[in-house]
Amino acid sequence: MSGCLISLEGGEGAGKSTVLAGLRSHIEARGIVLHVTREPGGTALGEAIRRLVLDGAMANVCAESELLLMFAARAQLVREVIEPALSCGDWVLTDRFTDASFAYQGGGRGQPIERIAELERWAANGLRPSLTLLLDVPVEVGQARAARRGSPDRIESEKAEFFERVRAAYRARAEAEPERFRLIDSNQAIDAVLRAACSAVDPFIAKQKEGA
Amino acid sequence: MSGCLISLEGGEGAGKSTVLAGLRSHIEARGIVLHVTREPGGTALGEAIRRLVLDGAMANVCAESELLLMFAARAQLVREVIEPALSCGDWVLTDRFTDASFAYQGGGRGQPIERIAELERWAANGLRPSLTLLLDVPVEVGQARAARRGSPDRIESEKAEFFERVRAAYRARAEAEPERFRLIDSNQAIDAVLRAACSAVDPFIAKQKEGA
Repeated sequence: MSGCLISLEGGEGAGKSTVLAGLRSHIEARGIVLHVTREPGGTALGEAIRRLVLDGAMANVCAESELLLMFAARAQLVREVIEPALSCGDWVLTDRFTDASFAYQGGGRGQPIERIAELERWAANGLRPSLTLLLDVPVEVGQARAARRGSPDRIESEKAEFFERVRAAYRARAEAEPERFRLIDSNQAIDAVLRAACSAVDPFIAKQKEGA
Repeated sequence: MSGCLISLEGGEGAGKSTVLAGLRSHIEARGIVLHVTREPGGTALGEAIRRLVLDGAMANVCAESELLLMFAARAQLVREVIEPALSCGDWVLTDRFTDASFAYQGGGRGQPIERIAELERWAANGLRPSLTLLLDVPVEVGQARAARRGSPDRIESEKAEFFERVRAAYRARAEAEPERFRLIDSNQAIDAVLRAACSAVDPFIAKQKEGA
């Protein structure tokens, strides 16, 4: 039996951290072995790349290098963590995956979609989540929430127009792949957001239990 | 007027460092403004990537991540250092460039040539040196020399078969592009190696002087 990969996506201040913790409890309470990870990161190499790529001192990193670094972290995460877990039948819940590159490096930085798709094929082994939860919130609402968290990293310091492009790219991907995506309105109480996320996951839990 | 990019390539213990220093003096003595750099490295981002990729603690870095990291460093070096220098008419001498990815990540690690060529097109902006000096030495000779230098990094710790594949890939590239490459027998006294390197550079210096 092969496991289930679920990704959580969304812009700044969309409530990803809270939803991630709540989803983790929800899934683990059903007796499923769950690995929780994040991008960029999740491996020794990936966390080192995360520090590099989010470091405010690296202000002049070119868009091409940023894209390549994201996929260097992802290639390692896929091979070291995600694929071994899935092949044991375990589940993986990841805070961001390849859709984030399409949104941030594609929509945000203007890197061509076909370039990102090609990297997805060989660097990420063509791996796609079974389910992607997109927490969607207007940019100004997300930014106001994120501002309360303290000092922003290099990417969080971008201008509002950047995040508008990121949000548009995310929404376009959700529209193009309605089977895989659940777009969750994150401009509401966090309890309601979490309930929507759990409801989206429940059919996958049911299927797992039938198969068991 | 546009400057001249020269790359120095070769395996472990081929004498690159000595030749680099000698070439630098030779070129600067002719009044040419020369930037000396290295790969991976040459920028703040690139040097951070160099530490990551050569760190023995990162023993399990997958071949895909290694390739992506090399090009992340290169993309930044091309845009931040090499292209601005060349567009001022300055010269750049680099300790390794894209041929090293074809040799190490292609020949050594088995990453497909077409994948590397595609990255060369967009990450390195298709930039190729005007002249590439390949210091060629039998693997056992190079390894014996390198062993005298002290503790090897992650890539230097590979087995002899790895370096045989690297050498074969380098030599194949030199054969395929005789206009750009000068293959220099590095299994001889370092003075003779340096003289050969300087002779290969002299026509470019003469051309520069004519144009000036």
